[in-house]
Order: sequence, then C-alpha cells, then structure tokens
Amino acid sequence: MKKIAVLLSGCGVFDGTEVHEAVLSLLAITRAGGQYQCFAPDIDQMHVVNHLTGEVNTEETRNVLVESARIARGEVLNASSLDINDYDALVVPGGFGAAKNLSNFATTGSRCHINPIVETFIREFALARKPVGFVCISPVMIPHIYGQGSLGTIGNDSDIAHAFNEMGGKHQAAAVEDIVVDEANKVVSTPAYMLATSVLEAHIGIEKLVNKVLEMID
Amino acid sequence: MKKIAVLLSGCGVFDGTEVHEAVLSLLAITRAGGQYQCFAPDIDQMHVVNHLTGEVNTEETRNVLVESARIARGEVLNASSLDINDYDALVVPGGFGAAKNLSNFATTGSRCHINPIVETFIREFALARKPVGFVCISPVMIPHIYGQGSLGTIGNDSDIAHAFNEMGGKHQAAAVEDIVVDEANKVVSTPAYMLATSVLEAHIGIEKLVNKVLEMID
Repeated sequence: MKKIAVLLSGCGVFDGTEVHEAVLSLLAITRAGGQYQCFAPDIDQMHVVNHLTGEVNTEETRNVLVESARIARGEVLNASSLDINDYDALVVPGGFGAAKNLSNFATTGSRCHINPIVETFIREFALARKPVGFVCISPVMIPHIYGQGSLGTIGNDSDIAHAFNEMGGKHQAAAVEDIVVDEANKVVSTPAYMLATSVLEAHIGIEKLVNKVLEMID
Repeated sequence: MKKIAVLLSGCGVFDGTEVHEAVLSLLAITRAGGQYQCFAPDIDQMHVVNHLTGEVNTEETRNVLVESARIARGEVLNASSLDINDYDALVVPGGFGAAKNLSNFATTGSRCHINPIVETFIREFALARKPVGFVCISPVMIPHIYGQGSLGTIGNDSDIAHAFNEMGGKHQAAAVEDIVVDEANKVVSTPAYMLATSVLEAHIGIEKLVNKVLEMID
C-alpha cells in the first residue's frame, strides 16, 4: 500500500492549514487506496488569528505541531523525524499557514524563505524523486525547492503568479478543478481555495491532484 | 436549493468538533446539491486539550464559536441567532465537543444536560418537524430532545448504549457505514468515528446520513 506524508502548518485557514483542504487530501488518499501520515514542524505559529473576527490575537501563542494534531486526531509526527524511506509521496495542503509558518511568503513575497526544517523535509522527497502535490498557496515553495523553470499554479492571481516567476518558477494559470503537472520534477499543484467557492470545488481539484501524485510513484 | 444548518462545538476531536466529520458533512451536503451554514454557541469550551499529548491545558480558555470558525473559514453564526424559517434541516457532527460543550454527557452520562442555547437550537428543528442528522457521539442528545422511544445509534459501545436507553431512548447498534433512521421523529444517526478506523469509513456513513436527511425534507 502506498504511504503518503501530509505536511500540515497548524489548524485554520488564516493562521494554519486550511482545514477543508487537509481533510479532503486525507480523504482522497484513502479513497485511492493509499495510507497517510501527517507531519508538522515543531515551531510557533507566526501569529494566532481569531477566525470569527479576522483579528490577530497578540496575547496568544500556538505551536504548529500541537495545532496540526487537531486535524490529525493526535496522529501527527514532528517534521524533523522524517525517514524518507518510509514514504512514497508527499501532499502539502494550503491555508495561510503555508505562507506564514512553513515559509514567510505572506510577509516577504518573492524574497521569501522556507523554514529550514520544512525545506529539508520537502527537499528529501525532491532528492529521492518522490512526487509531491502542492495545494492552494503552498505551491509558492516550488521554485525554491525545484529551481529554475519548475512549474506550478496558484490559480490566477497575477501578483502571486508574478512572484512565482520572479523566484525562478514558471507559473501556469489554472481553473479551480484543474491541476498543473511538472513531469520532470514530479510536482503537481492545484488552486483549491485560492479559487474555490465551495468545498465541492476544492474536493474535485484535490482528488485530481492526489490521484496524479499516486500515479507518479515509481 | 436546500439549506442545511451544521452545528459545531469547537475545532478538534478531544475538546471540540471532530474535524473530519465536520468537513465530510459539508462535503456531503454540497455533493447532494445543498447549501450549508455553520453555527456554534458563543460559550467557553469545557477545557482545552493539547491534541498532541492528550493533556488538558489548565491555563487556557477557548471559545466554542471562535474555534468553530476555523472549520467554517470564518463563516459561522451564533447559535442563538437561528431563524428556523431559513433552514430545511440540521446536521450535528461529533467529537468530544458534543459531549463536553454542547452537552455534559462526557462527565455526567445519562444524567446529562444539554446547554440551554444548544437545546433551544436543536428543539426548533424538532418542533418544526425538520430532519436532523446526529453523527458519532452527538446522538446522546436525541433522547432529551425527542423523548421516550426515540431511536439512535452511537455504534456498539455497550455503556453508552445503556446510557442512551436510561435517558428514554432506544439504542440500535450499527456498523460504521450504517445509519439508523427514526422516521417518526425525522432523526438520522451514524457512528462515524465512534467506530471508524479511517476517514473513508467515516465518509461513507456520513454521506449516507446527509442524503437521508435531505430526502426527509418535506
């Protein structure tokens, strides 16, 4: 049975993993006959957002690994503990956590860095030529990992597409139910809630992404 | 288009809504052509559980409505603001939040009470004879709302089944992919993560429940 790592970044669209995208990824993996294991880095979130009001709560700190455990029903591993031999592929759901915790794209755009633990984690899959699926905003990490000319999509936002290209990637616009495939790098991406207006739209694109990722496993 | 209220109880299986069950409920509603609106009571959680360690964090307080907004992507209404005329049916996902925040079943068993705001909220659907689906542990609220002889399932846990019957309900054992239907009361229940060993098993039962709930709408 194929075993897929899923990299989380907290729990909640505005400061962590987009919850629907995470669960839809897990669902698609199991529907395709795969198994999943969630991971997250043991770091503090950039900040905590009250998801009802949209305001930042400056008094509070939350840990990415601990909050990710809410999505994973407690079954989440520290990203620094990855043994790449145990996994066939990786899926990275979106949410602002990918641009605030896994990387700092939300604040620095094309000058962004990926958190070193996270960079090592994703790079292990790239080096082993194991396929990786990036959902929603998480494809902004593709150029850093895969270098010049690597393909990806974040939907059709022209500013983010521009930043993607500035970092050396090659952005391809895509509709919500579409995937963009970089065959050479074994990378798949889909816009999900960059464009989705319903959980059903996100589901269709994510299922397509997961099925393609599984198909690319050697 | 049928409009379904979804009652949340926080965000995380051990102190709030079971995240997978909530997202799978939203997915099933949209797949069936319905619309959803999330609700939650504006009350403090019974406690905050670190989902990585399972320990209670006695220093911290979280609000059910605010945390539910993480699942609802900010789009959640206060349960006390329900206008019953706007909705055709209700779905209540599980997670310990249903037994710790919506009711106190987790600590008092068959002597439990339902939070007054929550009781009024669910009772509005019962009084209007609009169908309600209860997932996982949330069916323990059925006997209080629907009274003597009301049918429901929480799977096959004999202690909880006994408590269900002590409260006046009539428990029917069910497998993870099954639903139990109380036609007279227009109530449907399914075990989901009371029994599920994967998100796929939970998905199958929840989709069945949602489809039945939608079918029961007058």
